[in-house]
Amino acid sequence: MKKGRLIVISGPSGVGKGTVVKALMAQDPRVKLSVSATTREMRPGEVHGVHYYFISREEFEQMIREDRFLEHAQYVGNRYGTPEEPVDRMLEQGYDVILEIEVQGGLQIMQRRPDAISVFIAAPSFEILGGRLRGRGDTDEEKVLMRLQQARMEYLVAPQYQYIVVNDKLEDAVSDLRSILRAEALKTEHQQHLLKEAL
Amino acid sequence: MKKGRLIVISGPSGVGKGTVVKALMAQDPRVKLSVSATTREMRPGEVHGVHYYFISREEFEQMIREDRFLEHAQYVGNRYGTPEEPVDRMLEQGYDVILEIEVQGGLQIMQRRPDAISVFIAAPSFEILGGRLRGRGDTDEEKVLMRLQQARMEYLVAPQYQYIVVNDKLEDAVSDLRSILRAEALKTEHQQHLLKEAL
Repeated sequence: MKKGRLIVISGPSGVGKGTVVKALMAQDPRVKLSVSATTREMRPGEVHGVHYYFISREEFEQMIREDRFLEHAQYVGNRYGTPEEPVDRMLEQGYDVILEIEVQGGLQIMQRRPDAISVFIAAPSFEILGGRLRGRGDTDEEKVLMRLQQARMEYLVAPQYQYIVVNDKLEDAVSDLRSILRAEALKTEHQQHLLKEAL
Repeated sequence: MKKGRLIVISGPSGVGKGTVVKALMAQDPRVKLSVSATTREMRPGEVHGVHYYFISREEFEQMIREDRFLEHAQYVGNRYGTPEEPVDRMLEQGYDVILEIEVQGGLQIMQRRPDAISVFIAAPSFEILGGRLRGRGDTDEEKVLMRLQQARMEYLVAPQYQYIVVNDKLEDAVSDLRSILRAEALKTEHQQHLLKEAL
């Protein structure tokens, strides 16, 4: 069984990361999404182990001490992190595992796992990003402006990702992601065994 | 106008490089094939500037002295080389230019143009490669064995290429090549200007 690849996907709020990732998984059953752990309260409709692993603050801190997170961060008073063990289990089973994550966590993972494939999803323009954020309906204008400000910060970090995909049309962005995953598999470092087997 | 990319494609005789490249060009009008120069005699049906630039030995040596070849080599008493200037002209016009070339020339180009994309096309197995060479009909068994021996040498050089594509089914190999070209275009070094323009 060939081991899967770790894939870090980041991009500003409103860029459509989740939709792109969902569409990719629908096309490629070998791709799975990692589940984060959080200390925040479970909301109606959420399922433990599906949306998040809901754990206590004590458990979270214990896991940090035991170095069991690929990355972790604090957000609005709650803690969020990616437990390493379930990710490694999926990788061992041959799945490509996507971590859909903000840039701060993305950089932590790239440092910890230098073989991760990293993709930053950008918007065609800030105007379009603003339009998408406003189109959600559930965000007031002040929040939209804060998110756009946040997006500018993320764009400054984006050059540290290996690939940049512009999410203009969904199907193009998904096709771009698939090209990246295929090309990465064709890199000589992953294909060299074929030459040796042939010789 | 965005500059095109230089693409080095090598692989053993009989692997089907020519067919793969032709199919790729049929799908992607932005891809062009480079034309080599040679000192050998023109054969019936060949056209100067299409199959080769047919030049004299003196012209060839003059071009070497003027460092006007991307690569050059000797083969069965004749000289072959890739003039740099027509390639650069096509690149400036925005075309991706494929150099379909044996590994010795391929390595010369990678050294001279480190930004070239390099792909080695391998056969699914040596049995299949032998079968394909025999299937051509125009080669006797001794020549087939010599070419297989040559292929073994080429496989030892292949790890110096960036990508390895196995030509099992033609359409898969073409799709793999297209994924490589797309993924290379999505690399952050080529996409970073989009972030700057957005900010």
